[in-house]
Amino acid sequence: MKTVVGLDLGGTFIKVGLVNEKGKILKKEQLLTLGKKGKRTVLSQMEKGIKFALKGEKNVSGIGIGTPGLVDKNGKVFSAPNLPDWNNLPLKKIFQDKFHLPVVVENDVNTITSGEYVYGAGKGYKNIICITLGTGLGGGMILNGKLFRGSKLSAAEIGHIPICFGGPKCNCGNVGCIERYVGATYISQIARESIKKGRKSKIKEIVKGDLKKISPRVISQAYQKGDSLAKEIWEKVGLYLGTMLSGLINLLNPEIIIIGGGIAQAGKPLFDSIDKEIKKRAFPLLAKDVKVVPAKLGTDSGIISAASLIIGESKK
Amino acid sequence: MKTVVGLDLGGTFIKVGLVNEKGKILKKEQLLTLGKKGKRTVLSQMEKGIKFALKGEKNVSGIGIGTPGLVDKNGKVFSAPNLPDWNNLPLKKIFQDKFHLPVVVENDVNTITSGEYVYGAGKGYKNIICITLGTGLGGGMILNGKLFRGSKLSAAEIGHIPICFGGPKCNCGNVGCIERYVGATYISQIARESIKKGRKSKIKEIVKGDLKKISPRVISQAYQKGDSLAKEIWEKVGLYLGTMLSGLINLLNPEIIIIGGGIAQAGKPLFDSIDKEIKKRAFPLLAKDVKVVPAKLGTDSGIISAASLIIGESKK
Repeated sequence: MKTVVGLDLGGTFIKVGLVNEKGKILKKEQLLTLGKKGKRTVLSQMEKGIKFALKGEKNVSGIGIGTPGLVDKNGKVFSAPNLPDWNNLPLKKIFQDKFHLPVVVENDVNTITSGEYVYGAGKGYKNIICITLGTGLGGGMILNGKLFRGSKLSAAEIGHIPICFGGPKCNCGNVGCIERYVGATYISQIARESIKKGRKSKIKEIVKGDLKKISPRVISQAYQKGDSLAKEIWEKVGLYLGTMLSGLINLLNPEIIIIGGGIAQAGKPLFDSIDKEIKKRAFPLLAKDVKVVPAKLGTDSGIISAASLIIGESKK
Repeated sequence: MKTVVGLDLGGTFIKVGLVNEKGKILKKEQLLTLGKKGKRTVLSQMEKGIKFALKGEKNVSGIGIGTPGLVDKNGKVFSAPNLPDWNNLPLKKIFQDKFHLPVVVENDVNTITSGEYVYGAGKGYKNIICITLGTGLGGGMILNGKLFRGSKLSAAEIGHIPICFGGPKCNCGNVGCIERYVGATYISQIARESIKKGRKSKIKEIVKGDLKKISPRVISQAYQKGDSLAKEIWEKVGLYLGTMLSGLINLLNPEIIIIGGGIAQAGKPLFDSIDKEIKKRAFPLLAKDVKVVPAKLGTDSGIISAASLIIGESKK
């Protein structure tokens, strides 16, 4: 069976592994990214990782790389948060020249989308929206069975679809972006402000009065204990996400929406609330068959998904 | 040169013609739709029109049909406004069996999108968003050089993307849909309410005090005469449309956005205002190259576009 190298470049760690066609990791390794030391160091760390994965292997058919930032169709990285000097970096060419193997480079959320499509919750579907919900809101799309990349740069900046033309200012410069409502900071802020206004909540007990410690995880814990504020917050998040997703359903008629990232672990209250809003808001003919499900690939999803970039291509 | 039959099924008229590969109409005819008499009558009117176009022709390579309503990939119509008994109607099969020629059926806005892609403002581009702005707001998309149809039914219900999660109720059941802000009725309403509140405006002069007569066309006329209310209205419409389109630019990274329909004739003030909002709101890297232009095909766009459904297919 053929194998593929999958490399997940993160702000802190590089995770790299050798993956077989079934999406099973045969060996893996973790290295520090060392982004502050500049791109040469990062590239050399990546090279080390890839060499580890390739060592002693003969049947490797390519290298898949997931990276933060905006990537074009030639595998050039235009900008990447946490990697300040990554600008116009021809990542694909660099590693193709070095290892004489096909290399596919994609941004991290497109990579996860590909992974979920080839090995995860999206297996068997042709039109998929994948969002990752954490500090920010990232997104990727499979349209007609292919990762959709837009005309130039990786598209699917789902986090910056506005859900209110006059909403609060977002870091991107626009106002009312969905990320500005459902990013981890903003979810926590809803809880903090309600408690400061005197609202009683188990959230306060869990963080022992230290409101800075409030996080989506804490809100989920409070929800489990029957806290009404926590319930309201997940309903609100569902309303915001459901509004944005209803627009995407009306626009793209996807079969399945996959939600990953830390906040997706809120589980049932979040998914119920999203479902409810979609049923209320999207075209019934388009909404009735769409599934909203959690991402399926676990801890090593970054490596497996990066590998899927190569395996998925060869399956077309 | 090969020719194609293009048929544009409207609520009132059926327009049908014989079109050559270059998009030139060689002959055309207009018939009454007679929707109230039921589907048999409408089908028989369509048949008459197609027979007219086919008469004496030998080199006809197919029949393209643009119809209102939701259409699936097999050319089945699920529902169509103004054609009450058009439900589950296998339009493609009916005419394929009748004329023994390839038939492509698409909803009307997808049809126009195809026409603009093959013969109009979208020629040469691969990622196109097309909207038609009139009583309602319709949309179609070319993604990676193909008309995007979604997983089941023609997608791109762009008019029902929400731009405000708590906005006013739309006919579709959702709230805050873009159509609810920029449909002809709503644009006229802004003018009417301002004038009722005592705002002075040339709009009132043009309709000679009969506020029911206010239409987007009247507002454009007032704008030409330097009316400040008219200017504000187009700015507002641009803000709403710009908000929605910025989301689509961030999501899909299109190369060009084509705007057709009656309201697009407002011209410069509308397009300037949309441009301004897009520059303010969308990701600069994605916004800087996107063109926003008026549709190019004129009065016979329905016939030419329907023909493009066949010609575009054969060019793939």
